[in-house]
Amino acid sequence: PCDLPAHVELHWVGKQAGNHPVPQEEINALLVRLADEGKTVVRLKGGDPYVFGRGGEEAEVLASARIPFEVIPCVTAAVAVPNYAGVPVTFRREVVNVTMVTAHESIKLGGPQVRWDLLARDPHGTIVGYMGVSSLPQIAAKLLAEGMDPKTPAALIERGTTSAQRSTVSTLRDLPDAIVKEGLKPPGLFVIGPSVRHAEKLDWFTRRPLFAERIIVPAPGGRAAEHLEMAGAEVVETPLPMTPAARAVVSALPNTGCLFSDPEQVDTIDDERDGPSWGSRMVAWCTSREAADRARELGWQRVEEILDVQRPEDVARLVMERLGGR
Amino acid sequence: PCDLPAHVELHWVGKQAGNHPVPQEEINALLVRLADEGKTVVRLKGGDPYVFGRGGEEAEVLASARIPFEVIPCVTAAVAVPNYAGVPVTFRREVVNVTMVTAHESIKLGGPQVRWDLLARDPHGTIVGYMGVSSLPQIAAKLLAEGMDPKTPAALIERGTTSAQRSTVSTLRDLPDAIVKEGLKPPGLFVIGPSVRHAEKLDWFTRRPLFAERIIVPAPGGRAAEHLEMAGAEVVETPLPMTPAARAVVSALPNTGCLFSDPEQVDTIDDERDGPSWGSRMVAWCTSREAADRARELGWQRVEEILDVQRPEDVARLVMERLGGR
Repeated sequence: PCDLPAHVELHWVGKQAGNHPVPQEEINALLVRLADEGKTVVRLKGGDPYVFGRGGEEAEVLASARIPFEVIPCVTAAVAVPNYAGVPVTFRREVVNVTMVTAHESIKLGGPQVRWDLLARDPHGTIVGYMGVSSLPQIAAKLLAEGMDPKTPAALIERGTTSAQRSTVSTLRDLPDAIVKEGLKPPGLFVIGPSVRHAEKLDWFTRRPLFAERIIVPAPGGRAAEHLEMAGAEVVETPLPMTPAARAVVSALPNTGCLFSDPEQVDTIDDERDGPSWGSRMVAWCTSREAADRARELGWQRVEEILDVQRPEDVARLVMERLGGR
Repeated sequence: PCDLPAHVELHWVGKQAGNHPVPQEEINALLVRLADEGKTVVRLKGGDPYVFGRGGEEAEVLASARIPFEVIPCVTAAVAVPNYAGVPVTFRREVVNVTMVTAHESIKLGGPQVRWDLLARDPHGTIVGYMGVSSLPQIAAKLLAEGMDPKTPAALIERGTTSAQRSTVSTLRDLPDAIVKEGLKPPGLFVIGPSVRHAEKLDWFTRRPLFAERIIVPAPGGRAAEHLEMAGAEVVETPLPMTPAARAVVSALPNTGCLFSDPEQVDTIDDERDGPSWGSRMVAWCTSREAADRARELGWQRVEEILDVQRPEDVARLVMERLGGR
């Protein structure tokens, strides 16, 4: 569940919609200052800190200041996101290397550039591009101009691995138009190479019955939450009342429902309804009549009573039924 | 802790020293057979299943047999191992792409080959090679012949991220000789590119006081185990008596010590002493006099009593002191 002990300080430094990020120099200085105050500092990033995360620069600053540190590796988007769109980034006798690139940064800055000319000439490689939605047209044009096969399978995945994932599978030649046609937006990752051809057959993620559902569940979610996840829903467990950390996770993506067992939970969560992630589709899934009554009183548009819960899997089963036999 | 419920069946299919692996076709057939029997099957691999793990082939087999599956991404060695040797695989304005290659396979088979000629021409890329110990001399020669700068920083890391990690940092020209000189052996991973120059400054892993210690701790290890880990030891928590899963983990690498609180634990672990991972350095760290007496009776070469344990961190502190002020 999204919870942290009360004594943990949170410092927001990341980029958020509409907010400018804190400059890297200030982040570096903050790390050193907090450590110098004797605090144990966790610098939390999305993905792996050393794969286009500027973790190297931050580690250099810490090492120079003689502050002991540890760098914890994590799953990077180039590995996870294609998988969730059905694409194995390697495939025996088909792909022998995978190149991770950050398209956006290298074009923007005057520094060293990605050698698209070299990448274009390897028909047995996979190219995975971070932050690639806006730069893809330019990159595809460059790869084609350098002689890459226009029929090379290529895909773009928006918000990969989340309940909001959308993707388009096409060819190098047609992907830029397909992105526009389908209205895909940042953040996104592109993948170009022969193993993209597996995408349809190996799509296990978006085919799960509750894919695209994001359901807020008061902690502890227990086995009902586990079964919702197994059926493909993204479950966001939150302590009530919500902590700042929980609120950050809850509001990171649009939510589609809440699971309520009593009216107090409805009251507490209802206070959060102003958030931007509060979609109009939001369903109050209520496992007691009292909770359902309270949700209706508070004006929830869709209230579903799921009262015949005998076993933990019943909640997931009933949610699937009510969502139209999915 | 390394434990599994008793009803879980284990099927060993991986490569182990001295054993031939089960052929891929048999692994595929086994997955289908077990699933057809109505079982929930976990195919556990090292690293990410889609990065040179033949996970794509296995997923194809499952999809063809209409068996529902899920592919769980994981940290791949190309991301984690350089980090543990102090190397950020990307660095702003220095490295704009990272290529993961599997050197061994592509040379062995007649199929598509890694385009070393193209990789040699990108001075702002990092090349990370899996299974690269034996093939490195050949690969380095190829990269040099294709014009890559002989002074390009390059490193080889043996058994990265483990207590048995060893590494050598050199240049593309000198790395093959350095590997021989230092006696590095498979399994290993090489990393070639400008950001290898950070290795010494950013080495946080092998500098921790208890690095290279691998200590078996009867579960639950509690806070003493946590403090051993924070000081850099690899802690292997095991239920007693050991389960087959625990035995596999314990024997995966050489161990350097055991933490005992009572004589029964000494008796139980002593039964495992025939294993190949039982080094002669093995220390019996005993938090009771009775445990220490029993270890001496059973002929343990080195028995250390750590009796003045007031706080959880005392165990780690005393272990450090006894190992010579590290």
